[in-house]
Amino acid sequence: MFNFEIKKTVGKARKGVLKTPHGEIKTPAFVPVATRGALKGLSFEDCSVLGSSIFMINTFHFYCRKEYETVERAGGLHDFLGIEYPLMTDSGGFQVFSLGAGRDQKTGKILSDAVIKNEGKRKGNVQIKEEGVLFRSPFDGSKVEITPEKSIEAQRKLGADLIFAFDECTSPLASYNYQKESLQRTHLWAERSLEAFKDEKKQAMFGIVQGGKFPDLREEGARFISSLPFFGFGIGGSFGESYGDSKKNMYSILELLSKNLPPEKPRHLLGIGEPEDVVESVFRGMDLFDCVIPTRFARHGTALTSKGRINITGAAYKEDSSPLDKSCSCQVCLGYKRSYLHHLARKKEIYGIILLSHHNLFFMLNLMEEIREAIENDNLKDLKRDFINKYRENN
Amino acid sequence: MFNFEIKKTVGKARKGVLKTPHGEIKTPAFVPVATRGALKGLSFEDCSVLGSSIFMINTFHFYCRKEYETVERAGGLHDFLGIEYPLMTDSGGFQVFSLGAGRDQKTGKILSDAVIKNEGKRKGNVQIKEEGVLFRSPFDGSKVEITPEKSIEAQRKLGADLIFAFDECTSPLASYNYQKESLQRTHLWAERSLEAFKDEKKQAMFGIVQGGKFPDLREEGARFISSLPFFGFGIGGSFGESYGDSKKNMYSILELLSKNLPPEKPRHLLGIGEPEDVVESVFRGMDLFDCVIPTRFARHGTALTSKGRINITGAAYKEDSSPLDKSCSCQVCLGYKRSYLHHLARKKEIYGIILLSHHNLFFMLNLMEEIREAIENDNLKDLKRDFINKYRENN
Repeated sequence: MFNFEIKKTVGKARKGVLKTPHGEIKTPAFVPVATRGALKGLSFEDCSVLGSSIFMINTFHFYCRKEYETVERAGGLHDFLGIEYPLMTDSGGFQVFSLGAGRDQKTGKILSDAVIKNEGKRKGNVQIKEEGVLFRSPFDGSKVEITPEKSIEAQRKLGADLIFAFDECTSPLASYNYQKESLQRTHLWAERSLEAFKDEKKQAMFGIVQGGKFPDLREEGARFISSLPFFGFGIGGSFGESYGDSKKNMYSILELLSKNLPPEKPRHLLGIGEPEDVVESVFRGMDLFDCVIPTRFARHGTALTSKGRINITGAAYKEDSSPLDKSCSCQVCLGYKRSYLHHLARKKEIYGIILLSHHNLFFMLNLMEEIREAIENDNLKDLKRDFINKYRENN
Repeated sequence: MFNFEIKKTVGKARKGVLKTPHGEIKTPAFVPVATRGALKGLSFEDCSVLGSSIFMINTFHFYCRKEYETVERAGGLHDFLGIEYPLMTDSGGFQVFSLGAGRDQKTGKILSDAVIKNEGKRKGNVQIKEEGVLFRSPFDGSKVEITPEKSIEAQRKLGADLIFAFDECTSPLASYNYQKESLQRTHLWAERSLEAFKDEKKQAMFGIVQGGKFPDLREEGARFISSLPFFGFGIGGSFGESYGDSKKNMYSILELLSKNLPPEKPRHLLGIGEPEDVVESVFRGMDLFDCVIPTRFARHGTALTSKGRINITGAAYKEDSSPLDKSCSCQVCLGYKRSYLHHLARKKEIYGIILLSHHNLFFMLNLMEEIREAIENDNLKDLKRDFINKYRENN
């Protein structure tokens, strides 16, 4: 029922087809995130018309209150949501840190130094043990435990087509020693995740490569995870302490990983979705991307355009009767003026979020279509150069 | 360019067609409210597919910061919004009280006794003078004045097809003497509104009948306003001190008004949109209704169904795999389960608001279609009895 076939390669970049019981995904693909089982502002059907063939749902948000049990009784995510599209769930590892300790420390994804000092013992409200993680639910403060076995059980009950092994998502500030220790834990958890995974007909599992910003650990991670019988691979965690560092280092680590991961299996870069990063990462052999950027940006009035991001709440757009992006052929760019979008975003109208989400998702999905065509036509380098030059005009 | 033709009457109920430069409206009609120029959760196009042919936009929300000037420079509301549907704007009178004094006193539409004692002088932050009203903007606290001339100027610049005279919307607690004095002011303002109104080709104006809960004042209001050359009539204000009183009294006042308003002109019951009230009011000769209920209810998880309102956040719906309303043929009832809608509403997902707004608007617009058919087929009485009996099952 599951298959990944590479149809064409150009340098490290690959164009392929990933088959699941609920349909095929043309890769490289962007996977819109429907955190709690809904995209923020549009239906799965509408997003599918924009070009998406697969969606990501976050296990964590169905885990803390055991809502995966409700979903299982409804017949699984597909029946619960009433859709037939291919779905993925992540393992919850990332959210344990970004919503658990990260939120406690107000550091989001990035933990504070104080937290790092307690490495391996207690991170804010998160305790990491060999068995699994114990933390306070960010939703109601109750104690929650996730182990590899429990994550896989929840993901089995949710019933997405593609699921992920449970991993430790480390802080970008973590020391080499901590990253090394954590990597061993992630590898043990990868083995236990596979052990707990029974149903290979309805679901396929991705292992996750960690290792932070350290090339040798990333290489070790890639080698170990590829030695296990995973269907595909996720690349998780961060790649540097600061935003800029992380971006630069990510590209060189991806180069390295593409040499160490088996070429025939799909590679998913977790949580990455800046248009530039997607283009650069496809160039370095990545096949799948998921990110909340298109809908999260929309809620803050930010539009992705061919000339870079613009925030439509800016005073400059108040009487601007041009479309959001002249080069874009989405319904929002064809039918609405910047002045109206400015008005809606300023007034925090729901319909403004709907329109910007629509445009931003179209932008990403259309970019993926162009990337696939460029690989087919052997001109990915041109696309990369042209896209990035133009995209940087406003940024 | 403007015309109202009654095609059929059954008792006091009327079925007609209202022609405007932007298209025809079949009456009785429900007019969805797009307060700031957007429906809360769906596009004008989508709502038009559900059966709406006209929308109401609130002048007040474009008045306080003179945003009607921006709209005028964009070419008027139709150009600003990029739509060609018939539009109405109200005069701002209702919002001066409900968002001005009402919000200050935390009484919403209904002012407190303390406010009533200062009748005619100062109502919270609202001063009512013969010239007009002076109040603090609920948006930024600045001083704002609305006079009949200024309301009409703003409405002319907004450029909706149908506009309303500026009136004083009194408190349901106001005394007989205050209502009488206020009625005279509303009548002077009606004359001044007409005086200020120049463009009879692009816009047509409705006068507003006030008079509160007092039948003799309502009768006087109807007689005076119908003596002026308005295209149609709005029935404004409230009809009793409490919700129950107001409902009962409204029906008998509408009976009275239908005898005192010229039969050939359209009648708009302002701000009323409970399904039962709409049915009862059509029965008493009303043609048009506007109300935020379908979208406002949606934001609070409430669905209008043939068996009355249900709040989908209720625990009873957590694993309910039936549709919202078995008798409903909207896309939400055909494609989604209550359990999923419950999940979305509990999690305050935007997509939950979108789905409930869609359903609630369909419910109202479909009810109007059934009402028009019932008038055509001489069985409005049956519809009224059957609809109300069924609607009260759950309420």
